[in-house]
Amino acid sequence: MKLWQKNTGTEKEIEKFTVGKDAELDMQLAPFDVLGSLAHTRMLQSIGLLAAEELDVLQAELKNIYKDIEAGSFAIEPGVEDIHSQVELELTRRVGEAGKKIHSGRSRNDQVLLDLKLFFRHQLQAVVEETKDLFDLLQEQSENYKDVLLPGYTHLQIAMPSSFGLWFGAYAESLVDDMYLLQAAYKIADKNPLGSAAGYGSSFPLNRQMTTDLLGFESMNYNVVYAQMGRGKSERVVATALASVAATLAKMAMDLCLYMNQNFGFITLPDSLTTGSSIMPHKKNPDVFELLRGKCNKLQALPTEISMLLINLPSGYHRDLQLLKENLFPAFEELQRCLQMMAFMMKQVQVKENILQDEKYQYLFSVDAVNALVLEGMPFRDAYKKVGADIEAGTFSPAATVTHTHEGSIGNLCNNEIANQMQQAISQFNFERVEKAYADLLG
Amino acid sequence: MKLWQKNTGTEKEIEKFTVGKDAELDMQLAPFDVLGSLAHTRMLQSIGLLAAEELDVLQAELKNIYKDIEAGSFAIEPGVEDIHSQVELELTRRVGEAGKKIHSGRSRNDQVLLDLKLFFRHQLQAVVEETKDLFDLLQEQSENYKDVLLPGYTHLQIAMPSSFGLWFGAYAESLVDDMYLLQAAYKIADKNPLGSAAGYGSSFPLNRQMTTDLLGFESMNYNVVYAQMGRGKSERVVATALASVAATLAKMAMDLCLYMNQNFGFITLPDSLTTGSSIMPHKKNPDVFELLRGKCNKLQALPTEISMLLINLPSGYHRDLQLLKENLFPAFEELQRCLQMMAFMMKQVQVKENILQDEKYQYLFSVDAVNALVLEGMPFRDAYKKVGADIEAGTFSPAATVTHTHEGSIGNLCNNEIANQMQQAISQFNFERVEKAYADLLG
Amino acid sequence: MKLWQKNTGTEKEIEKFTVGKDAELDMQLAPFDVLGSLAHTRMLQSIGLLAAEELDVLQAELKNIYKDIEAGSFAIEPGVEDIHSQVELELTRRVGEAGKKIHSGRSRNDQVLLDLKLFFRHQLQAVVEETKDLFDLLQEQSENYKDVLLPGYTHLQIAMPSSFGLWFGAYAESLVDDMYLLQAAYKIADKNPLGSAAGYGSSFPLNRQMTTDLLGFESMNYNVVYAQMGRGKSERVVATALASVAATLAKMAMDLCLYMNQNFGFITLPDSLTTGSSIMPHKKNPDVFELLRGKCNKLQALPTEISMLLINLPSGYHRDLQLLKENLFPAFEELQRCLQMMAFMMKQVQVKENILQDEKYQYLFSVDAVNALVLEGMPFRDAYKKVGADIEAGTFSPAATVTHTHEGSIGNLCNNEIANQMQQAISQFNFERVEKAYADLLG
Amino acid sequence: MKLWQKNTGTEKEIEKFTVGKDAELDMQLAPFDVLGSLAHTRMLQSIGLLAAEELDVLQAELKNIYKDIEAGSFAIEPGVEDIHSQVELELTRRVGEAGKKIHSGRSRNDQVLLDLKLFFRHQLQAVVEETKDLFDLLQEQSENYKDVLLPGYTHLQIAMPSSFGLWFGAYAESLVDDMYLLQAAYKIADKNPLGSAAGYGSSFPLNRQMTTDLLGFESMNYNVVYAQMGRGKSERVVATALASVAATLAKMAMDLCLYMNQNFGFITLPDSLTTGSSIMPHKKNPDVFELLRGKCNKLQALPTEISMLLINLPSGYHRDLQLLKENLFPAFEELQRCLQMMAFMMKQVQVKENILQDEKYQYLFSVDAVNALVLEGMPFRDAYKKVGADIEAGTFSPAATVTHTHEGSIGNLCNNEIANQMQQAISQFNFERVEKAYADLLG
Repeated sequence: MKLWQKNTGTEKEIEKFTVGKDAELDMQLAPFDVLGSLAHTRMLQSIGLLAAEELDVLQAELKNIYKDIEAGSFAIEPGVEDIHSQVELELTRRVGEAGKKIHSGRSRNDQVLLDLKLFFRHQLQAVVEETKDLFDLLQEQSENYKDVLLPGYTHLQIAMPSSFGLWFGAYAESLVDDMYLLQAAYKIADKNPLGSAAGYGSSFPLNRQMTTDLLGFESMNYNVVYAQMGRGKSERVVATALASVAATLAKMAMDLCLYMNQNFGFITLPDSLTTGSSIMPHKKNPDVFELLRGKCNKLQALPTEISMLLINLPSGYHRDLQLLKENLFPAFEELQRCLQMMAFMMKQVQVKENILQDEKYQYLFSVDAVNALVLEGMPFRDAYKKVGADIEAGTFSPAATVTHTHEGSIGNLCNNEIANQMQQAISQFNFERVEKAYADLLG
Repeated sequence: MKLWQKNTGTEKEIEKFTVGKDAELDMQLAPFDVLGSLAHTRMLQSIGLLAAEELDVLQAELKNIYKDIEAGSFAIEPGVEDIHSQVELELTRRVGEAGKKIHSGRSRNDQVLLDLKLFFRHQLQAVVEETKDLFDLLQEQSENYKDVLLPGYTHLQIAMPSSFGLWFGAYAESLVDDMYLLQAAYKIADKNPLGSAAGYGSSFPLNRQMTTDLLGFESMNYNVVYAQMGRGKSERVVATALASVAATLAKMAMDLCLYMNQNFGFITLPDSLTTGSSIMPHKKNPDVFELLRGKCNKLQALPTEISMLLINLPSGYHRDLQLLKENLFPAFEELQRCLQMMAFMMKQVQVKENILQDEKYQYLFSVDAVNALVLEGMPFRDAYKKVGADIEAGTFSPAATVTHTHEGSIGNLCNNEIANQMQQAISQFNFERVEKAYADLLG
Repeated sequence: MKLWQKNTGTEKEIEKFTVGKDAELDMQLAPFDVLGSLAHTRMLQSIGLLAAEELDVLQAELKNIYKDIEAGSFAIEPGVEDIHSQVELELTRRVGEAGKKIHSGRSRNDQVLLDLKLFFRHQLQAVVEETKDLFDLLQEQSENYKDVLLPGYTHLQIAMPSSFGLWFGAYAESLVDDMYLLQAAYKIADKNPLGSAAGYGSSFPLNRQMTTDLLGFESMNYNVVYAQMGRGKSERVVATALASVAATLAKMAMDLCLYMNQNFGFITLPDSLTTGSSIMPHKKNPDVFELLRGKCNKLQALPTEISMLLINLPSGYHRDLQLLKENLFPAFEELQRCLQMMAFMMKQVQVKENILQDEKYQYLFSVDAVNALVLEGMPFRDAYKKVGADIEAGTFSPAATVTHTHEGSIGNLCNNEIANQMQQAISQFNFERVEKAYADLLG
Repeated sequence: MKLWQKNTGTEKEIEKFTVGKDAELDMQLAPFDVLGSLAHTRMLQSIGLLAAEELDVLQAELKNIYKDIEAGSFAIEPGVEDIHSQVELELTRRVGEAGKKIHSGRSRNDQVLLDLKLFFRHQLQAVVEETKDLFDLLQEQSENYKDVLLPGYTHLQIAMPSSFGLWFGAYAESLVDDMYLLQAAYKIADKNPLGSAAGYGSSFPLNRQMTTDLLGFESMNYNVVYAQMGRGKSERVVATALASVAATLAKMAMDLCLYMNQNFGFITLPDSLTTGSSIMPHKKNPDVFELLRGKCNKLQALPTEISMLLINLPSGYHRDLQLLKENLFPAFEELQRCLQMMAFMMKQVQVKENILQDEKYQYLFSVDAVNALVLEGMPFRDAYKKVGADIEAGTFSPAATVTHTHEGSIGNLCNNEIANQMQQAISQFNFERVEKAYADLLG
């Protein structure tokens, strides 16, 4: 099919090409679009661009639309380009001409910027909460299995004793560090772009501080050129934060696939959580771990993709930016699903006891044996030689118990201290401010 | 040349292959390696693994070595593998057997982890400071040129009036948001990994809180398995933060290249800052802006490169991680050089006045004209039609002045409020804690 | 919602998580799955694993299913996992037990490997053909506008005369080089993996050469472990080839956005191909070019995403590989749409005449002026100085005509030679072999 | 240090910033720069821009400089910007004013384009040859160990019997497919850009076909705008090809690290090829495999880095392109070193016999057992059930021998057929044409 040979339909082709997936993706922005209009109209009335009675009608119907959205009874109609148009259309149907006034002092550009920031805040909160749930579970399993030993590897070679307490706890602590990136993303999302219009501000005497407060923002993107520049940059930073959580999950999943492998055999799963093979009667495959790994590795490419869309675009809006939604929006859901699924699996995973009794792990204790001699006063070099000679001679027989006591070691996991770090990180987000603001707007 | 056909030299080839660029890169870690040993030895003595007199001798000579490093008179000798070995070798030369004891309770793994964290903290501080310097200059230029108007573009089409005040100010504000990623990176770097040994802890009764305090860390990587997992993760997050600053610079450089182009012609540079052409007598090329753009775009690939090194490595140390230094270490210097060079150029750049007098920019004021009619009471739709008709008829003659008053607009840049955001971001870093700790260690 | 707190539905959640988007994506594989079974069953009969009469029935019904797929009346039913199961299910409904025998000597692994290779070949052919169409159009426009001059830029600074003939022709030639990557991808896709079973071969005496010939493959993936290793590798190379074409389109789109910008003003579009602004009556935005640029830049991230899925997976099948479909499948359609849309736009684009009459382009001819003096015998250095001095003194008045005669220059575009290169590249693909094989299979 | 506070040195800073690493990287281009000038001057003389006697002198001295470069006695002097200037400077010293004439009809832009194409051709040839050497060795080892069985894994779960014959042979075959990308890269490098001048051609009556033939190019980049556009594009495609070979090596290295792990224990290395641990007397670490894996994974990020430099640069030369050398040049050496090192290691690796005797591998033969029953006439479903029941009941006792006979299976590796594919791929490169051309030029 060659477009240019056809007499008809080209406009339709162009429309399809330009609208893209907006209609389906924009539904996720719907509640935020209404929240934005609730705040914007209150501000417009305060500066005289809406009459008090107009405001009352608009507020009432916007709240009704919000309820329709929550109830799942609101949709973007065929032929309507995006969520902003749909809300305005619906509003105008219900209240007449006043519905069109909600666009005053606002451009499509800052309207979508606002919707995105509100959406990102919301999604980041969900990610933070799911991450915290997984963290709690991992800490719980760390305590449950703190006495179950595991070989520790360096260079993938058997090295020193480790434990499931350490293993579960390590991934919990990894999520604490991921939280700092989520925080950076949230801070960037938590600034109000509304009022920047098409990226160069407005000759209306807008009160941007008022909408900032009404929408529960920490602050605003002051400079209107920067507010527009935030499109793409916010997405990149948000994607980076998601990718960091994903990297933690992917690494955990890689360990789990290895531990499920029969040569390691450190864990098992209930049959219901594995899949069989159509030609091998003995197979139990850890598909969920593999898919967790794959999905989370894929998510790590998202920041690259976004960067490639943004690089060398001069300042000011470009239509390219519309495409940012396509992979970022599903990424939120994907990561949340992965967080839930990992928690679900980690709840069910069965760890094997007495792993270290296999003779291939006997040299795990050589460092502790050297250290014990050193603590008895032997110089390190001599102790190292003696243990090496014992190993060589086949006379090395260590105690096979581990007495590590320092902070973060097998015998002293410090899970409480790590939980405190997590709590401190989460306390920075101030989700309550947002909730209170929305309650006021919708009240 | 085929390696396996040679009778000699294979060991040398393997050594060259495995040592890589460590000898040259490790010199950047030298002062931090000594600082780590100053703290570690004090802790060793506190738990009875060093005698008080041994400690005195070691502390004195470590401080001397630190001074040698600062004076540039310390080097990694040929045949010595890395900085840790060189320091230990030099120390043993000076104080005898006690020099070898500094390795007790420590593995090469946590030693390099520590050196890297200290190095990252140091480099991040330098980046923060250079970023702040550029920020200050951009804000200054924003104020200097706040009345010089510029066309604003959307879709790269002439859209609405902008100003150099907005343009300079926008990039300053962009650096504020970049600061949140630098902060996330700093927080991750600001946790002590020392004591994690080979990634599984130690049977010595180490006091990790003591080294945490001595080295001025905010906290520690508690879980020893996670401490090791931080290798690579720290690098990734640090690279992400550098890439974010770089993205701001690159976008600015793209704008500048466009503005230097004669079709735009919004800025000029002194001849000394442009280069000529060997075959075109009239050329003045903005090579510095192009190289800023290129270098900063290249830096944005660094997180991808690091991710590709890390993906699907199971937990525990792998030699692959050594390669992380190769591109990250030079990136710090590259970005700092770019920040300095951009500041230098922005100090020199000459902005053109009266740009908007060119007739191609006359429609810039159409939105303001529509808004003015609306403020006089005309419905938006009618105002839009009237201005459109005037444009069509060639009778559109706007005032060509801009009276935008809201926050962040041409007439109200809010540079002070943006400066406050920057100040607040920087105040979170607490560089003083580190400086005080180092002064104590070296005092 | 916490998965692990629920008493019901977990299996459904896991199924949803593991099945992913297979049901919708697999429909694209449907015709190829049937083609594969047509060949496989003929081979099975030849080695005695199917009776002749069974083969007849199976062939007849497989052909009917193929027609149903072509007619759009075949679908994957709810609860059926993938296309392979659906075809087998449908076949068994129609022919009874013999339907189940088509799985003999085959695993799900090599079946999907085969479907993918056939699908990639098909999609690559479509991309090659669309690319050739765009190539032809660009060459045509190059000839149409070979006399319309354009300023040429280096460093984005006005440099030397160029032409629309050169500009259109350059992008045509770029597509020739892209063809070599499409060829590499095609070669890799054009090798038969069927018979590798689960990646380790089969104890049945399969005749792999027979299916290779029946399916019109150039050759086969001999080693069965490598055949499985091709999963992911084929995808990566295919994505690389798509990305290369996309890079050409994206760069062209960037030029076009710049040329549409009023400061350049080199081209225009009919109003029906631009979009307006809701607040600026004078705007004509080149959204299609921007979306072409954005979509094609996004496509360039696809190889990275695929690499991130693959890196450090040991040999052998992993479930992660299933995810490769998710972004690669839509990429084929996206790129083909972009190729069509670019051709459509390039057909409509209007180029501006007499651009170089604007005085800002007067120095374009300085190099030609220098050369003219050199051809008259003046040493280059003196000629360069003289022209420079004339420019300085304002007395430089060049002829403003261009007489370049060498291969590939303004006056000698060599479009025929470039067309020959393209023809030669395309002749390597041998699409006819495939078409003939399919006709035989379906006949 | 703040640049703008200094009274002196700014020019030096700018020079350092703009020159970058050119001086050191350009030495690799030296011989090719001379070859280019040998051809260019012969062409200049043929069109009357050089006298015959000038040509003689220039040819003689260029050949002398070529010998100096080969002898290692040629260097870029401090203060000289790049290799082109150094060659011209040296030539002028030796032959006087005629030395300056070699720049006629040529710009720095097409000169470096040419040098790069010649350099890429040369490096690609070296990569092809090293790849072929590794291929040969892998095939040899495949034959050596074709009877040594290995467990085959799917989902990293024990699945079916494999062999070292298959394993070595699979990676050999992977290199065949990599060869197609090297070929695409070579084709793109094998087109002459000389004569495109600054990207817009020349008013001199250049004979581009003559230099194309003299330099042994297959063809030329006809369109001069495209010739310049090849800068960056060539690099991207070359990097893609290197990355593909690297991906094969990295995957092989991952397998090897796993096989060295004691839980697998499929291979060992001589002590001289492993490294020990400073604290664990029993460790033998496969550092070389880990570094191979890491280096080759890092190489896979190179195409992304290059794309990020190129995206959204409008057509025409930009200084950003200079930075392409920085990571691509070392990549050639890195990959060649990795190819050599992998070959060296694969020569030394010791495979373990009798691996499958371990009872955990007993179910490997279940598929073959099912198939055997099917071949005896039992329906697949019944056979599958019977074997499954035997496994469940503990009565499954397979023959533990493998009789696979089809193409590419354990018993029929088809290494010759694969070698033929490789030979055919290599025969396309036509390195002889280049060698002959250079011999003529230098003769």
